[in-house]
Amino acid sequence: MKVSQFPISTLRDTPADAEVISHQLMLKAGMIKRLASGLYTWGPLGLRVLRKVENVVREEMNNAGAVEISMPAVQPADLWHESGRWDEYGPELLRISDRNNREFCFGPTHEEVITDYIRTEVSSYKQLPVNYFQIQTKFRDEVRPRFGVMRSREFLMKDAYSFHLTPECLQSTYEDMFAAYQKVFTRLGLNFRPVEADNGSIGGNASHEFHVLAESGEDDIAFSDSSDYAANIEKAATLPSTLVRPEASQTMESFDTPNIKTIDDLAQVMDIPATQQIKTLIVEGEDDSTVVLLIRGDHNLNEIKAEKIDGVIVPLTFATEEKIEAVTGSKPGSLGPVGLELRIIADYATQPMADFVCGANKEGVHLKGVNWVRDLPEPEFQDIRNVINGDPSPDGKGTLQIRRGIEVGHIFQLGTKYSESMNAKVLNENGKSQVMTMGCYGIGVSRIVASCIEQNNDENGIIWPAAMAPFQVALAPLNYNKSAEVKAVADKLYQELRDLNIEVLLDDRNIRPGAMFADLELIGIPHRIVISDRGLKEQKLEYKSRTAADAESVELEDAINFIKNKLSS
Amino acid sequence: MKVSQFPISTLRDTPADAEVISHQLMLKAGMIKRLASGLYTWGPLGLRVLRKVENVVREEMNNAGAVEISMPAVQPADLWHESGRWDEYGPELLRISDRNNREFCFGPTHEEVITDYIRTEVSSYKQLPVNYFQIQTKFRDEVRPRFGVMRSREFLMKDAYSFHLTPECLQSTYEDMFAAYQKVFTRLGLNFRPVEADNGSIGGNASHEFHVLAESGEDDIAFSDSSDYAANIEKAATLPSTLVRPEASQTMESFDTPNIKTIDDLAQVMDIPATQQIKTLIVEGEDDSTVVLLIRGDHNLNEIKAEKIDGVIVPLTFATEEKIEAVTGSKPGSLGPVGLELRIIADYATQPMADFVCGANKEGVHLKGVNWVRDLPEPEFQDIRNVINGDPSPDGKGTLQIRRGIEVGHIFQLGTKYSESMNAKVLNENGKSQVMTMGCYGIGVSRIVASCIEQNNDENGIIWPAAMAPFQVALAPLNYNKSAEVKAVADKLYQELRDLNIEVLLDDRNIRPGAMFADLELIGIPHRIVISDRGLKEQKLEYKSRTAADAESVELEDAINFIKNKLSS
Repeated sequence: MKVSQFPISTLRDTPADAEVISHQLMLKAGMIKRLASGLYTWGPLGLRVLRKVENVVREEMNNAGAVEISMPAVQPADLWHESGRWDEYGPELLRISDRNNREFCFGPTHEEVITDYIRTEVSSYKQLPVNYFQIQTKFRDEVRPRFGVMRSREFLMKDAYSFHLTPECLQSTYEDMFAAYQKVFTRLGLNFRPVEADNGSIGGNASHEFHVLAESGEDDIAFSDSSDYAANIEKAATLPSTLVRPEASQTMESFDTPNIKTIDDLAQVMDIPATQQIKTLIVEGEDDSTVVLLIRGDHNLNEIKAEKIDGVIVPLTFATEEKIEAVTGSKPGSLGPVGLELRIIADYATQPMADFVCGANKEGVHLKGVNWVRDLPEPEFQDIRNVINGDPSPDGKGTLQIRRGIEVGHIFQLGTKYSESMNAKVLNENGKSQVMTMGCYGIGVSRIVASCIEQNNDENGIIWPAAMAPFQVALAPLNYNKSAEVKAVADKLYQELRDLNIEVLLDDRNIRPGAMFADLELIGIPHRIVISDRGLKEQKLEYKSRTAADAESVELEDAINFIKNKLSS
Repeated sequence: MKVSQFPISTLRDTPADAEVISHQLMLKAGMIKRLASGLYTWGPLGLRVLRKVENVVREEMNNAGAVEISMPAVQPADLWHESGRWDEYGPELLRISDRNNREFCFGPTHEEVITDYIRTEVSSYKQLPVNYFQIQTKFRDEVRPRFGVMRSREFLMKDAYSFHLTPECLQSTYEDMFAAYQKVFTRLGLNFRPVEADNGSIGGNASHEFHVLAESGEDDIAFSDSSDYAANIEKAATLPSTLVRPEASQTMESFDTPNIKTIDDLAQVMDIPATQQIKTLIVEGEDDSTVVLLIRGDHNLNEIKAEKIDGVIVPLTFATEEKIEAVTGSKPGSLGPVGLELRIIADYATQPMADFVCGANKEGVHLKGVNWVRDLPEPEFQDIRNVINGDPSPDGKGTLQIRRGIEVGHIFQLGTKYSESMNAKVLNENGKSQVMTMGCYGIGVSRIVASCIEQNNDENGIIWPAAMAPFQVALAPLNYNKSAEVKAVADKLYQELRDLNIEVLLDDRNIRPGAMFADLELIGIPHRIVISDRGLKEQKLEYKSRTAADAESVELEDAINFIKNKLSS
């Protein structure tokens, strides 16, 4: 394309309201433009990149044997009532009434629609497994849309759904999709990690997220430094402590802690390390009971793990101040396990602690020198905290490191959550009706574009990996409109590269070289060729890679081969 | 593809609720499946066809210099308030409230969004003209969704918008788009006609519709039998009559017409031909006035033409029975122009009438032998009726014929309707701020699929033109799972055709030949090759074109060349 036919509209200033670098650069490069909160128009340049991602995703889905279909964006509420999600789903579900006051939603996901499609399409186990995908605009009415297309309300998603007779068959397709996802993100040139995930409310069994690693990520991911182990921090397990608990060396005694309500306060004012403290939390249990959770002072409760404690109410609900006072006799800020006649679950990491500090269940008073067995019965120990840097990896190999990630893919083994409630059955080998088993597989197509920029940028702009670059080569002629020789060489190169199916952008804008180069760096085209009268006097062009500091000189007659070599290397 | 990897799910019976043939065949062939009223899922086969249409549209838009972008489907009400359409647009606009009770709509069209995009993107005449397009899911909450994807609520549309400094520049792009549309529909193999259209409420000047000709069409189109003239019946003009009015030969007298209220009643009961009658209609005029419209008895009022009469209220509003009685002294059914002290506009076709019949403005009484000048003043004559078969063509060449058409494209010269109200301006050559001039250009991508089937089908199913066929060639092996020889030949042909980039479907289902052939005819694949043990004994295959009555024999060794010849012919 020539820029005269393919408008580039870069901004000089960094938009003030863009918090993360990808949002800033996408706006500056004119890739996207804001229409309203969480709604963006993709300009010509942005759409070219988006289509590249979409095509890689489509190809790998086809290669994995998934079949493309296209479901409506607008979905009838009836189906969501059948699955039970019409009431479960919160305000993120954009609900719509049509002219006849029938209820619909703008689909944030399509489990209901595909299950309805399949239950009328498939009647025999012989037709299974099937795996359908679509690439489609979705809508989630985010409470706080932000970071541009990273967390927008309208977004492009690839969603796939598979149906099976048995969990074994699901497992096989799940593994195929896992492999296909790895191919997608590898082909796109992303630094990513598949991580074990908690599958939360969506139900079912195995679940993996695919994260692009970037500091701006909203998720914490735990990796082993010595193995392939990786998990979302929500999911990463801690192991029972292998440390031996020291003998008690202090007597338990209370001490005054006026106006001290937090672990940090106690650490700073009283010089008691957080690792020597125990934090006491009280949550609601079944039958109006309460459950006490104990965590080492420097650790954080993992609510998803805590929800798995028998008898705890889901979603996890912290007891009110009134209730805490009623069951402990104290306000929050001075709670502790000593003397409490309540069910207590303590994190594994508290097991080897001795002579620890905790609240005395009396306002402004704490206990020190507390020891298990001697001062209070040993509670049940479980894994209820988030892992931290340096924890042993749960696979027994090495220690964990925490990094930030951007979730760009998620695969689930749904099991029968939807097929059961929506009565999606087939006849099995014995002629008996059997509920199908499902998997679902999502990729955030538009989010990939932003996450790639988070990983690939410098002070001059975006640095595209080859697979996502809107153009591979930029031709930057100086005085294109004035120098007949420059124009002739630029036009010839342009045509030759196009004939080789190389995607080339010829900047025919006749603007200052500095402004032209800045634009081409900002939009991140991997290879740039400058054509100037000065160079042509010596039959030379100037080449610069987007990632190189300096330009290099190229013989005019070698230019095409030179570019071909650069592109293939 | 092999059918085992690309599920085909045909129905045996014709769905009872599908009224038109394209809807029936799309359901039977498994191309689409109904989700809810006006909402359809595109199955694998349907989506393949849809994508072919989409790609032809995209290529011709690119060839015409339009640049692809992607705007959000969900649009803020603010912009529609700016253009004034939030209140103008009826219940077809699907209005949505988000979690913060802000108003949005699911875009049925994108004039507001693109105008907003351009007014922040373009500031100088030097950046003009621009022409942006997108291919996107739209929603219109139709009062009566029907005919499958022909008139669905959610549909795929290509919409393009161009911006210009001058009407001349708009005219030039308009002509380019007209030519691009002709290329699109020609490449797709459709029998279509571009017709002059009334541009109705969308404003502006020139406008053309592109119609696929088919009996099930919802629009009437008038064509000249001797020239290129074609127009939507709403737009096709009638000319002032060239007939000489005969002398009056009867005296005017009243006659009783008890219980006769229509032209047809009068024709049947009293044996007075409709062509000898004048129909009297009364509509609302400005300032609480009324305007009388006169039409020959066998003609129909054209409301769009009537709306162009000076002083008539728009939209055209027929007077209530009470008002008619107040101004004529009679109820509807016996109205006539004689003696009325009201403004009267008569259609051109009434000008040469003599000795005509009309109501007497007295219930149950009509007048006969009525003559202009002698019995009542000559009114103003205008074109206010629909053309009929046999009318002279308005270009003076030949006579008009009326046929049914399905609108698949529409191009408009919008002028400044949106750019004026939304303040979309640029600096012109003189540094003065100037409102841009706009064009817009739509193609109903999903509707094209249905309209093509309306034109191309027989009792066995769909007959695809090459450009829209989901596969070019079907391989139909008999006993694929039992005969090693059949399987070997089928697999080899399959691979060879794929290597030639020929889109081939291998039916590996091992079903009865009759059922297999019926499916392949139903889904309309243009070329079919049968591979059977019986044929292979003589080194022969059987070929049948979808449009031929009989199959022909092909030498196995010539098969690939034979197919290549068929595809290129």
